[in-house]
Amino acid sequence: MISTMAHHAVENGPRYLQVAHLIEGQISRGVLRVGERVPSVRSLSQQQDVSISTVLQAYFWLENHGFIEARPQSGFYVKVPFADLAPEPSFVGTENSPTQVGIAKILHEIMSASGDPKNFPLGAGGAGPELYPTHKLNQITTQVLRKYPHHSSGYDFPPGAEPLRRQIARHTLMFGCEFSPADVVITCGGMEALNLSLRAVASPGDLVAIESPTFFGVLQAVESLGLRAIEIPTHPRTGMQLDQLENAIKKHRVKACVVMNNCHNPLGYVLSDEYKRNLVNLLTKHDVPLIEDDVYGDLVYGNKRPAPAKIFDRKGLVLLCSSFSKVMAPGYRIGWVHGGRYRNEIERLKFITTVASSSLQQLVIASFLESGGYDRYVRRLRICFADQVQTVSRAITKYFPESTRVSRPQGGYLLWVELPRGISAMKLYEQALAQHVFVLPGPMFSPSRAFKNYIRVNCSSPWSDQFDRALLTVGRICFQLFEARSK
Amino acid sequence: MISTMAHHAVENGPRYLQVAHLIEGQISRGVLRVGERVPSVRSLSQQQDVSISTVLQAYFWLENHGFIEARPQSGFYVKVPFADLAPEPSFVGTENSPTQVGIAKILHEIMSASGDPKNFPLGAGGAGPELYPTHKLNQITTQVLRKYPHHSSGYDFPPGAEPLRRQIARHTLMFGCEFSPADVVITCGGMEALNLSLRAVASPGDLVAIESPTFFGVLQAVESLGLRAIEIPTHPRTGMQLDQLENAIKKHRVKACVVMNNCHNPLGYVLSDEYKRNLVNLLTKHDVPLIEDDVYGDLVYGNKRPAPAKIFDRKGLVLLCSSFSKVMAPGYRIGWVHGGRYRNEIERLKFITTVASSSLQQLVIASFLESGGYDRYVRRLRICFADQVQTVSRAITKYFPESTRVSRPQGGYLLWVELPRGISAMKLYEQALAQHVFVLPGPMFSPSRAFKNYIRVNCSSPWSDQFDRALLTVGRICFQLFEARSK
Repeated sequence: MISTMAHHAVENGPRYLQVAHLIEGQISRGVLRVGERVPSVRSLSQQQDVSISTVLQAYFWLENHGFIEARPQSGFYVKVPFADLAPEPSFVGTENSPTQVGIAKILHEIMSASGDPKNFPLGAGGAGPELYPTHKLNQITTQVLRKYPHHSSGYDFPPGAEPLRRQIARHTLMFGCEFSPADVVITCGGMEALNLSLRAVASPGDLVAIESPTFFGVLQAVESLGLRAIEIPTHPRTGMQLDQLENAIKKHRVKACVVMNNCHNPLGYVLSDEYKRNLVNLLTKHDVPLIEDDVYGDLVYGNKRPAPAKIFDRKGLVLLCSSFSKVMAPGYRIGWVHGGRYRNEIERLKFITTVASSSLQQLVIASFLESGGYDRYVRRLRICFADQVQTVSRAITKYFPESTRVSRPQGGYLLWVELPRGISAMKLYEQALAQHVFVLPGPMFSPSRAFKNYIRVNCSSPWSDQFDRALLTVGRICFQLFEARSK
Repeated sequence: MISTMAHHAVENGPRYLQVAHLIEGQISRGVLRVGERVPSVRSLSQQQDVSISTVLQAYFWLENHGFIEARPQSGFYVKVPFADLAPEPSFVGTENSPTQVGIAKILHEIMSASGDPKNFPLGAGGAGPELYPTHKLNQITTQVLRKYPHHSSGYDFPPGAEPLRRQIARHTLMFGCEFSPADVVITCGGMEALNLSLRAVASPGDLVAIESPTFFGVLQAVESLGLRAIEIPTHPRTGMQLDQLENAIKKHRVKACVVMNNCHNPLGYVLSDEYKRNLVNLLTKHDVPLIEDDVYGDLVYGNKRPAPAKIFDRKGLVLLCSSFSKVMAPGYRIGWVHGGRYRNEIERLKFITTVASSSLQQLVIASFLESGGYDRYVRRLRICFADQVQTVSRAITKYFPESTRVSRPQGGYLLWVELPRGISAMKLYEQALAQHVFVLPGPMFSPSRAFKNYIRVNCSSPWSDQFDRALLTVGRICFQLFEARSK
């Protein structure tokens, strides 16, 4: 058996690719049609005389290449080919000079609207409660209450509960990180990790380089800490223009660079190891710390969890921030940071700002990770998000004006939507809100308020008539704004 | 009956005072001796033909005046008269000019020692796990898990969970505050409340007025936010010298004043309503915000919970900070702040630093407060702390050199101990730590590192042989340092 497979591999590439091409051929010839279920893993394994894992590899390849999609507890289905979707957003070379960020007030207004249950949360950052492992976590909580009745009678002083730090070190090992539990400082979610990291490496007045577009939380933190930002033009598929980053570093005194390499918010890309290595090398050359936000990293589609840039860090210059808010329990408020050479400063800052993180939640997450339940769970979650992102992309293609463009996220649940030129995302936001749909306007993702005709759409709520209607509403407003523009 | 009581009250002062004086007379004549149980509330009520509540009032008066002490589930006992204890610390007029706080590094080293379980925590800030309502809180947690299985599937965005904000408004009503749930912003403990308050009213470089000594957490926050501090001389019984505060305000541009009026850390005093009114009036006159830290407020001994200065606030200038860490569950990380006119800014800052506080813990505390269990529980806790403070004071009087002075806390569980002149608290800290006892040295409570011969002692761990030995150890080192000094 082994020799046969080796033979195949030598002659025609890896066996799984052959299986993948077989199915791909059936799809392109119309033997398998959009929405139809592809053969079950077991039956294809028997039929092709290959192992289960080879079929799975083949299906993940097909999934990554947009031919099929997994549906939880159901199997793999032929999906709308990428070619039938609206094209991807184009590259925008945003302004490239240091800016005072002045976005706090408007963002606060906008985010207040996101908390209102009257509004359908197309713009929110969390997933629907149905998707989280609530039942399992509650079960574990009950066990922890029994086992450690005094769980909250003291402070879990920084760096935080050892069992959780150990599990995080173990978990990150699986994608190439070699952390010790002592490297990790537990925080109140990813935003605290980001804030503490910024405070550890920069002081009021300092300049930090950011992607453009970037997660608006970065802008809020930068502004509230009295820092300035310089936007580095960022390609929607291939990340920051590293030559532009280097120019900025040479021209200005850049004190840190903040990025999201895996499942970028809002662009959705996952950058290559090569890019990550180049980025770390470039920053190391200039001794500039890299703050890497990896909160969506576990949500990359497919079966290989990509590494963070942190694995290429030789000088302790990369501060890796993550959290459990995006993958299972936003309300727990548990995140973490590997601070590299800034670890002690981060530990100290954590102590004097929030003293400690919630003890019970740290123990519950540690126990969930230890049980192995997390990996199984997150695999299902990824498939589910991939499916929903696909469904929402289709609806946008259907309901929005023709020249709309939609990102192809490689993980997570966020879509970056480029509307036809001349449509104001701010106006769209306002008019949609008047009809109780909340979308996030693109200018919130840039200190220079670029991306005026972009919105971010959250696909994490399970598909429903209400979701469909919300997108239809936004699409109609787009048409109206588009027509008003032409007049 | 009513007319008889009214008659008594008119002729000889309130009836409860007569009962109190009766017992006081028996103690001073030696009829009741130190350590003996005074008559039970019921029997004295029958004997004197007064109501149960009148006897309780009498006993609380005797307790506040140092004649008797309550022991949980046992009754009231004659205690060592204050006269037999070491005298109270003297007033120190500390330096009175703006200072850069530079205490972060040494404090971090010192606090690291506090987390080490090898060291007996005489210097720590929390209470022993035995005292907290762990069982009840765990029971409520189980109920909340059942009732709200999706408790943590979303963010409780600022201002935080409405049921908890409502209960806090209800709770504070009992001591004179008239808050609406909308006034309250939930935080990750009291330190986050303090940090957000400072950030809401002051910017890097600004000057804030503080008590001297002050809680070291204030110094940490002030330093890390790039603020400067001016120490206002503070009397160990009567609080800040308000004329000196006014001078400082007139002379410098003071952007805020940070105080603890109830159960001061480390002084232990509870200031009068008159002082609080004067303080608020003074600051209002100069339009200076007051940040009032009330985390120990519920732990005032006796039966009347004093009001915070906040009740005298007419202009929204007082930011009242509190938390549940000192009274029941440090590991929950739940605090709150009434931000007055800075409320919106605090809500915004909370959102961009830690996004939200732990959802489950907010619901559990809300449910505990709603059940009425909190008030019953905290009444017992106060009695217990009063008892332990008394026991530790006695031991210090016994074990420490003769000219040692000990504070008379009116609430909480912290003692402020003035050692004979020439004894270095820093040396004492180091030598005690070498023998695995952790005490907090006085210079940590002042940016000018005053209080060189002071230590703070935490009485919250239940009395034990180990506790006794720890104090004996510290006492012996004091004697050694005292002798070394004379040579």
